[in-house]
Amino acid sequence: MDVTPQHTDSPAREAEGPDGLEAAVRRTALAATAYRGWSRGRRAELLDALADAIDGARDTLVPLAHAETHLGAARLQGELTRTSYQLRVFAREIRDGGYLEATIDHAAQTPMGPTPDLRRMLVPLGAVAVYSASNFPFAFSVLGGDTASALAAGNAVVVKVHPGHPRTSRAVSRIAEQVFSAQDAPADLLTFVEGFEDGVALVRHPLIRAAGFTGSLGGGRALADAAAARPDPIPFYGELASLNPVLVTPRAAATRAEEFGTGLAGSILQGGGQFCTKPGLIMVPTGDAGDRLVASIGSVIASAAAKPALTSAMAASYSAGAADRAALAEVRARGRDSTADDQTRPLLLETSATALSPALLEECFGPLAVVVRYGSAEEAMTVVDMLDGSLTATMLTAEDRDDQLGDVLAALTEKVGRVLFNGYPTGVAVNHAQHHGGPWPATNTVHTSVGVTAIRRFLRPIAWQDAPQEVLPIELREESTDVPRRVDGSYVLAAQHVHVLGADGEDEREAGST
Amino acid sequence: MDVTPQHTDSPAREAEGPDGLEAAVRRTALAATAYRGWSRGRRAELLDALADAIDGARDTLVPLAHAETHLGAARLQGELTRTSYQLRVFAREIRDGGYLEATIDHAAQTPMGPTPDLRRMLVPLGAVAVYSASNFPFAFSVLGGDTASALAAGNAVVVKVHPGHPRTSRAVSRIAEQVFSAQDAPADLLTFVEGFEDGVALVRHPLIRAAGFTGSLGGGRALADAAAARPDPIPFYGELASLNPVLVTPRAAATRAEEFGTGLAGSILQGGGQFCTKPGLIMVPTGDAGDRLVASIGSVIASAAAKPALTSAMAASYSAGAADRAALAEVRARGRDSTADDQTRPLLLETSATALSPALLEECFGPLAVVVRYGSAEEAMTVVDMLDGSLTATMLTAEDRDDQLGDVLAALTEKVGRVLFNGYPTGVAVNHAQHHGGPWPATNTVHTSVGVTAIRRFLRPIAWQDAPQEVLPIELREESTDVPRRVDGSYVLAAQHVHVLGADGEDEREAGST
Repeated sequence: MDVTPQHTDSPAREAEGPDGLEAAVRRTALAATAYRGWSRGRRAELLDALADAIDGARDTLVPLAHAETHLGAARLQGELTRTSYQLRVFAREIRDGGYLEATIDHAAQTPMGPTPDLRRMLVPLGAVAVYSASNFPFAFSVLGGDTASALAAGNAVVVKVHPGHPRTSRAVSRIAEQVFSAQDAPADLLTFVEGFEDGVALVRHPLIRAAGFTGSLGGGRALADAAAARPDPIPFYGELASLNPVLVTPRAAATRAEEFGTGLAGSILQGGGQFCTKPGLIMVPTGDAGDRLVASIGSVIASAAAKPALTSAMAASYSAGAADRAALAEVRARGRDSTADDQTRPLLLETSATALSPALLEECFGPLAVVVRYGSAEEAMTVVDMLDGSLTATMLTAEDRDDQLGDVLAALTEKVGRVLFNGYPTGVAVNHAQHHGGPWPATNTVHTSVGVTAIRRFLRPIAWQDAPQEVLPIELREESTDVPRRVDGSYVLAAQHVHVLGADGEDEREAGST
Repeated sequence: MDVTPQHTDSPAREAEGPDGLEAAVRRTALAATAYRGWSRGRRAELLDALADAIDGARDTLVPLAHAETHLGAARLQGELTRTSYQLRVFAREIRDGGYLEATIDHAAQTPMGPTPDLRRMLVPLGAVAVYSASNFPFAFSVLGGDTASALAAGNAVVVKVHPGHPRTSRAVSRIAEQVFSAQDAPADLLTFVEGFEDGVALVRHPLIRAAGFTGSLGGGRALADAAAARPDPIPFYGELASLNPVLVTPRAAATRAEEFGTGLAGSILQGGGQFCTKPGLIMVPTGDAGDRLVASIGSVIASAAAKPALTSAMAASYSAGAADRAALAEVRARGRDSTADDQTRPLLLETSATALSPALLEECFGPLAVVVRYGSAEEAMTVVDMLDGSLTATMLTAEDRDDQLGDVLAALTEKVGRVLFNGYPTGVAVNHAQHHGGPWPATNTVHTSVGVTAIRRFLRPIAWQDAPQEVLPIELREESTDVPRRVDGSYVLAAQHVHVLGADGEDEREAGST
């Protein structure tokens, strides 16, 4: 977690008095109660209006975020596009209703005896906490994916703002305020706290029902521990640290060394190396082809200029981590020298599978990657066996398959949440099939923080037994047809959702997608 | 957690040497690796065979369990039926494949730019831990719902056996061994450990990837804390303590006092009061009708014989808890005196909403319930405001609706996982719509431990990006049609799954249920 001094123009400082945290949480919990009664359609309109509003403020927001984060206008334009897109994706999903897992089992005779009428769906939790990330001032911050999924699910949100971009956070929060007002939403649907101490107090607050976090392993672990140690533990969804291993097969090195080398260098350098999915470990075969691939990465890295980090503290942390790693025995370093403070110098380290030090297997946040040369499938497997969990693993195979490395691929798959082929892990699509998660320390959860199913984190099931129709949520009433449901084990869909395959696998009917 | 002395004929003691825990976990992790490759069909056959085998051993198992638990033959016959039924329900679900959440997003152009081909589904975790419960020697033990859902999902299981029924556990484990052998399954798909210390060591073991627990608040909390404190925290799904409040409306008391009174008493006494869903707090209106209802409960309770508890330790704990509660000021007690050791004496306590002590709001495991008399909707609400989370809340309304108590119902719903009307909370159907969970201390999770969706606890998502078809799990290949999938946002179903509603809500097509 960063130690950047607090600014005075953050949304939290402006909104709250000395009892800031307590007041923010109490007001948010009240807003959650009011918001819970909103229909899915009305919530979808709110999310769409938020998306339109931040798109409309693009000319203000992007320069502001660049001034605070140095991420560059192009990168920030893309991030803002992603942020409004995420809000619209969740709006679409809540209109669809599939996320509710609406289920009806009518009264029946079973081998266990007669069973009652039971109806289940997911409902919001109440007030939840979202911890903003340093590296995505829009997409993982005030109106980022965590907030979007929590609001879509029907919760109110207390955002712990990141000290790295307080004015951007303030500007986005003002936009949200205006949209809430225009949509007759509770003003306290989003509130703000700041600082390390209030961050920990937030996850401990009795009215907070869950928390989403993207950030450092140390900060996330402290919050996860606080959530678990509460008198009433709550779910803490942390996205923490990820090495994102890449395996280059001999055939890929032999046939596409320069292309893959240049591509990997671009992925390492993207956003100043400050992506959760930056490829941090690259397994490359020994021999000439591998040499060419490493040289290709190295030449891009060596010619890349140092860049400002998100914060001074992060620049210092990167420089220290890079120096420690580069000083290890049997490590060869490529990169430009630089004496500038607050800058991160791109660096490519190279070692062998047999000499690999565990110190090289921890994420170094910034433009640094470690190449590990392997001489056989067995050597590649020894490297994989040393790895902790990651968000992604990448296979650069050139062709579809390399049977010799099948076991290595299987072992890698066990350790990650996304496996990708002949591409680069940076750049995370926001859709139904995305999974941005993985075994510890990538995350501490079996849920995703990016993509449509991220909404599951901020919901819990309720079952209604023999309930009068008027007590049931509209989505569980007998006559409701606008959400996909599972009824007595069968999938019951309204026409707008349906796409049926015949027994021969051919399309038999298609009534349009949602 | 119980402190019953260890028996020497438990499956754990028989199977393991001095390094019991370490050996059991290592062998189970190896079995998980082998089992992971099994098709869904083969896993379903294994579960069905387990169900058949325990049904076939009914005449041996029921007397054995009765000798160890005193639960009675009828109750245990029913529980065994439930246990084999659960195994078959999970077999059916894994054949169906809906639980996989199989999702395909083809490569597309989006506002975020081009997106790759992404395919997501849920995969097993590996070796998981299951903690047997005292009160269900079959249904929440060796081959109970936790084990069934974990095996169905494709995991191997280390069971921490309960000291209250070691011989029953041993007999069930022998049956499983025989079925594993007949089905060519790894012999170590199920292994066993025992004792408090090994139970804690189990959840701390690096090879254990998740744990399911049904038991006491103290024992569950200790294990949850250990799971959260690991270097790599794992999901711990605990079902702990539940008061299961009941709200009797004035109209229900006026029209059906005797019927509801007798029904409530039966639910309190069922299984010796040793159900997780025993109604422990009953809100009854003041006045004559309420008096009659309370008298009706009381007369059944007062005439009910004391019964042996599951273990001596639990009998002692119940007696102490009952005595403490009965001694509170302004509490009236109904029940027979008894001096027998190891017996639990049914007890009905009565107090008023205004005098209600918080000490009466903690679960007392055994045949005890607390009646709280309320004089107004406001008084009922003050009681609800004092409640912690529960598995269930029951509304006895006689007619469909009581508008005066609508706010109380809404507040109760926020605190529980299942809301039921004009029925009794004991007896938990096993189907798709069931939810057996709820806010702390009922559970520490947003998932259920009973019903089909319990399988979600032992799965995690993986996304494959631009993967060659032959690398993908069969359920994610382009041509696969036998599992329900979400493709580019639409629901794509094979014909056997489909039930479509037309725009007017009428059935348009039905191709059979699964």
